[in-house]
Amino acid sequence: MTREKLFEQIQTKKSFLCVGLDIDIEKIPSHLRNLEDPIFAFAKEIIDATHSYVVAYKPNLAFFEFYGVQGLISFGKIIRYLNQNYQDHFIIADAKRSDIGNTSSRYAKAFFETYNVDAVTVAPYMGRDAIEPFLAFENKYAILLTLTSNPGAFDFQFSESDGQKLYEKVLKTSQDWNGSERLMYVVGATKATFIASIRKIIPNAFLLVPGIGSQGGSLDAVSKAGMNHQCGLLVNSSRGIIYKSKNSDFAEAAMTEAKNIQEEMAIYLSQKGLI
Amino acid sequence: MTREKLFEQIQTKKSFLCVGLDIDIEKIPSHLRNLEDPIFAFAKEIIDATHSYVVAYKPNLAFFEFYGVQGLISFGKIIRYLNQNYQDHFIIADAKRSDIGNTSSRYAKAFFETYNVDAVTVAPYMGRDAIEPFLAFENKYAILLTLTSNPGAFDFQFSESDGQKLYEKVLKTSQDWNGSERLMYVVGATKATFIASIRKIIPNAFLLVPGIGSQGGSLDAVSKAGMNHQCGLLVNSSRGIIYKSKNSDFAEAAMTEAKNIQEEMAIYLSQKGLI
Repeated sequence: MTREKLFEQIQTKKSFLCVGLDIDIEKIPSHLRNLEDPIFAFAKEIIDATHSYVVAYKPNLAFFEFYGVQGLISFGKIIRYLNQNYQDHFIIADAKRSDIGNTSSRYAKAFFETYNVDAVTVAPYMGRDAIEPFLAFENKYAILLTLTSNPGAFDFQFSESDGQKLYEKVLKTSQDWNGSERLMYVVGATKATFIASIRKIIPNAFLLVPGIGSQGGSLDAVSKAGMNHQCGLLVNSSRGIIYKSKNSDFAEAAMTEAKNIQEEMAIYLSQKGLI
Repeated sequence: MTREKLFEQIQTKKSFLCVGLDIDIEKIPSHLRNLEDPIFAFAKEIIDATHSYVVAYKPNLAFFEFYGVQGLISFGKIIRYLNQNYQDHFIIADAKRSDIGNTSSRYAKAFFETYNVDAVTVAPYMGRDAIEPFLAFENKYAILLTLTSNPGAFDFQFSESDGQKLYEKVLKTSQDWNGSERLMYVVGATKATFIASIRKIIPNAFLLVPGIGSQGGSLDAVSKAGMNHQCGLLVNSSRGIIYKSKNSDFAEAAMTEAKNIQEEMAIYLSQKGLI
């Protein structure tokens, strides 16, 4: 998907909501658990119910790998279902991969070709040659961990060197990598106070912002600090939407929650003059 | 596997060799490619031929994920084959995972319970809560990326803050994490000149050392700088062993190469007085 197409979707749906598909069989309604593929069945109902309010879906690989081969079958089915039925949506494999160059290129092909998603989250520690293989695919994106939403973010990401913090160095250094126009960045909503300074370093790139909902980040604060001329934000909620109800009305409850967030997003998009 | 058991294996086999199973169907002998599961068939022959000279096997997940669900089926079969036939071997899933706490615990369960490997490589950028879930399993290990063998290692790992480089901070900080006695560390053989100083920070932990063979690191230098009272090293070769011959004698060629490396390792173990 081109960046322009992504922005068009944001304008059309008046939404920059990403729904995280972190599917745990223990948490899905009991009537689905005995189906042949409960993970896919749950995801399909969530997607069908929420797609009008959502621009991106983000399945997290950990939740699929947990179920072994069957989990990966479900993951593949979800990606195919999205690609066949909702081509307008941006699909993010939240995998946080990276490895030495020749190995990273296997991961990149796995996600961009074998599964055909639009973007993969990647980890910066191993540097340039671990990330560039993900940046070699037209209209595909690598979303680089920058400032994460978890408490452990403070262990290393704020280490200061030559007057800049590690996450700032990640932002700046990655600008020089081949294909850097296909980089997006993960910035946790719980770190919203840092988003304005991040925007100075990367005015144009999209940010994937997890951490609203269960993790406690503020959509208002993220939007005010992070929105650019193409919105430039994909704000994710996972558990807060997909497990809004644990009963048979889960899809309707997810839809209502997605709609509520979308309506708040529409206000911020309008205030910024983007819709 | 306990650390003592691992050291016993090293003494018995006079080897601290780890064989990386980075299996690319394009690179395996043509007579195997038409089998139902060429990846497993190739791995099985490599394992059967080399197991006497090897203490650890390290399948890299990127190479399996590349083939989608079929690749993960092969991965599972290889792990089961090793666990059933060669229980003495230490199995490392080279996956370089990490995520926020509740998600990392899914990855940990995937690898330690669903697949039942002994260790998983993990990435430090997200800090404590991303790694601790991997340290909660008895006799299982998380192998933390520290100083990697690739050129991109210089992008961030040497960033200096408060008089210490990032990789040194990773070593020191991780000592305080719950379950840190189950941490091992990835240090590339191409960075052997740094191993002596790393040993001062972590005298007892095992190091997983990739980068001899195709990547050009020196076994002699690594051994002299890194060996401790329990050896404390697992030195990996992947392509240099498994693709030593591309013909039907590939398993024999792999065995000869593994044996050659083992014989060199026996010298270093003997010089250190460990055998």
